[in-house]
Amino acid sequence: MNYNFSDRMNGLQANAIREIFKYLSDPSMISFAGGMPSGDAFPVEILRGICEELFKDKDGIRGILQYGSTEGYAPLRESAAEFVKRVGIADARVENTLIITGGQQGIDLACKIFLNKGDCVLVEDPTYIAVLHILKTYEAKAYGVRSGRDGIDTDDLEEKIKKYRPKFIYLVPTFGNPTGKTYPIEKRKKILDTAVKHGVVVFEDDPYSHLRFGGDAVPSIKSLDSTGAVIYNTSFSKIISPGLRCGACIADGEIISKMTLCKQATDVHTPTLSQAIADAFLRGGFLDGHLEKILPVYLGKKKLMRAAIEKYMPADFKCTDPNGGLFIFGEFGSGINTADYFMKALKNKVAYVNGADFFAAGDVFSTVRLNFSNGSGAQIESGIKVLGKIFKGEI
Amino acid sequence: MNYNFSDRMNGLQANAIREIFKYLSDPSMISFAGGMPSGDAFPVEILRGICEELFKDKDGIRGILQYGSTEGYAPLRESAAEFVKRVGIADARVENTLIITGGQQGIDLACKIFLNKGDCVLVEDPTYIAVLHILKTYEAKAYGVRSGRDGIDTDDLEEKIKKYRPKFIYLVPTFGNPTGKTYPIEKRKKILDTAVKHGVVVFEDDPYSHLRFGGDAVPSIKSLDSTGAVIYNTSFSKIISPGLRCGACIADGEIISKMTLCKQATDVHTPTLSQAIADAFLRGGFLDGHLEKILPVYLGKKKLMRAAIEKYMPADFKCTDPNGGLFIFGEFGSGINTADYFMKALKNKVAYVNGADFFAAGDVFSTVRLNFSNGSGAQIESGIKVLGKIFKGEI
Repeated sequence: MNYNFSDRMNGLQANAIREIFKYLSDPSMISFAGGMPSGDAFPVEILRGICEELFKDKDGIRGILQYGSTEGYAPLRESAAEFVKRVGIADARVENTLIITGGQQGIDLACKIFLNKGDCVLVEDPTYIAVLHILKTYEAKAYGVRSGRDGIDTDDLEEKIKKYRPKFIYLVPTFGNPTGKTYPIEKRKKILDTAVKHGVVVFEDDPYSHLRFGGDAVPSIKSLDSTGAVIYNTSFSKIISPGLRCGACIADGEIISKMTLCKQATDVHTPTLSQAIADAFLRGGFLDGHLEKILPVYLGKKKLMRAAIEKYMPADFKCTDPNGGLFIFGEFGSGINTADYFMKALKNKVAYVNGADFFAAGDVFSTVRLNFSNGSGAQIESGIKVLGKIFKGEI
Repeated sequence: MNYNFSDRMNGLQANAIREIFKYLSDPSMISFAGGMPSGDAFPVEILRGICEELFKDKDGIRGILQYGSTEGYAPLRESAAEFVKRVGIADARVENTLIITGGQQGIDLACKIFLNKGDCVLVEDPTYIAVLHILKTYEAKAYGVRSGRDGIDTDDLEEKIKKYRPKFIYLVPTFGNPTGKTYPIEKRKKILDTAVKHGVVVFEDDPYSHLRFGGDAVPSIKSLDSTGAVIYNTSFSKIISPGLRCGACIADGEIISKMTLCKQATDVHTPTLSQAIADAFLRGGFLDGHLEKILPVYLGKKKLMRAAIEKYMPADFKCTDPNGGLFIFGEFGSGINTADYFMKALKNKVAYVNGADFFAAGDVFSTVRLNFSNGSGAQIESGIKVLGKIFKGEI
């Protein structure tokens, strides 16, 4: 049969990272590509104990196995509202908290409630690759806002708000994906003021802020807002487990009720076992101990990768040095196109992501994103060594 | 802040069943409203054992906790392809199998890959309420096809295909929601022939066929098709647990790859622990024993409800007598509007769903859907007794 697909499918392709995933089943591959937390860092024993306890409560487990409410498992909504106090959101209420099937669903639902075909969204350039993919499924346009060391250029932001009349601004202001940048408090205030002045919503995506191994915490943009302009989106993927697909979205009640209506139409509710596990983890006070255990490991890996870059990569390669998160982002001064080296790297069993894929216009070719959390120390050393040789033209 | 929501949000409301959910937290409420399997029927001990085993496999559990592929957890894709042999789909291949976050996600993804704003879908009248809600989120139109004792009228189907040029036909041909009807094989063949003749896709939603407690199995429409016209959508909610939010979609490779692209943009992948539990349940051969245990219970409850209806409901109330599934659907010959009795029923602690909500045009007011699986025997007896008094005007 010949299928008559919707217009949104025209030219829609798998995003680069999901495509690279296919190569990663080769166990000899060293991957700096995905945004995967270290498998060694999962709190397996804690989660095993939590599951055992959940099944011991005979009435509780029947509730967990039954249909649940779209808004989320009530105990998790409570503990998520408590959890976001860590980023300065002191007054989150359960009614303003929607549990989502991974952080990505929060972005998708925000698009669904705000975007008509042809609408525009502003993103930091470069930005989280999946957002560009999601926007295509809504036939919406992404425009990049220039970004410096401390985050987006607020003059460029204001100019582009006036020019494009965006429905919202998508930002990852803490240990941003792909750059690892964190916006200082002044920048956050200025972004919020600009957004409020022009009546534009800010979607603050924050899956990484708890992965801080250096520097001082900065309050979330949401915590600075009293106007309802900010949707705060977070995920338990990086601090508990991505396989659970569980996160939370905190926003004005009107936004949350619209997102809930749309979530009802997509997956009814987030799997309750995932929610109950996340709740027990947060409620049981396991997070701090877990972070104390994994953050030194992540710091060690980042240092190793930075040192290997210093040692092996071409002298014109300049990269970020984040205080947290999962990524280092770098650029070659020579202006080479990193895509030209990609297949050679894969053949030599090292995967990275071409930085161009993270730009709204896909046009900054001399960049790469390197994940430092997933590989072992030895893999980081040998993988960067191989990349150095490739980019120097030695292999 | 004043929000500028998308056009799809205009008039979008929670579907009636999700709204009724709010009243159901009152433990004294007798609910014939939801489509919930009986909580007593969950295989709690089997699932407890499965979880324990999953956590014992140290490497396996790390894989389950990590990011997974959008297409689904590889073992579950295999066991789902095997599972659908039960409905006659002999040749399902892993490449044609997409794991979804509950059956509802399959419907949503089909809408996403096929529907532009203003497109049309044909549904049986009455149909699954959530489909009408999902279609609104795509700004698509639903038109109802007349239906008799043995399913949709294929003359009316052909006429409406010609008139509305639908992108697909949505059907629940086995123990349909809300009626409990099952289409005989001849009807299935005729529907398929008509769809293929006009180049229209059939979305065959089948969450209930394994809940058969009487009569003979009928092969799925998908099993009769060699043209790629049918998307077969199934769910593990009714046979394992709805809280897991796990199902599978079997279709032509082109459709599956498009649905996968869209799933990538919504929740990345279905929670892997849910998938691994469903896989272990199917692979471990627990399904048959579990069905043997629960089906007599469901049959008993249906008989009880039919007998109570006979005893207490007005004489002009005629209802279906299904051989499986979860629902009885009835109509009052007097032509009363069941919505007029709804609040009185809630005040008297009994919930049902007004049948009108299941019709594309929302215009058949003298009908109700009654779920027989969720309540206890005593609740069924006393709940129907109350409804009888209400509909007879005695209270």
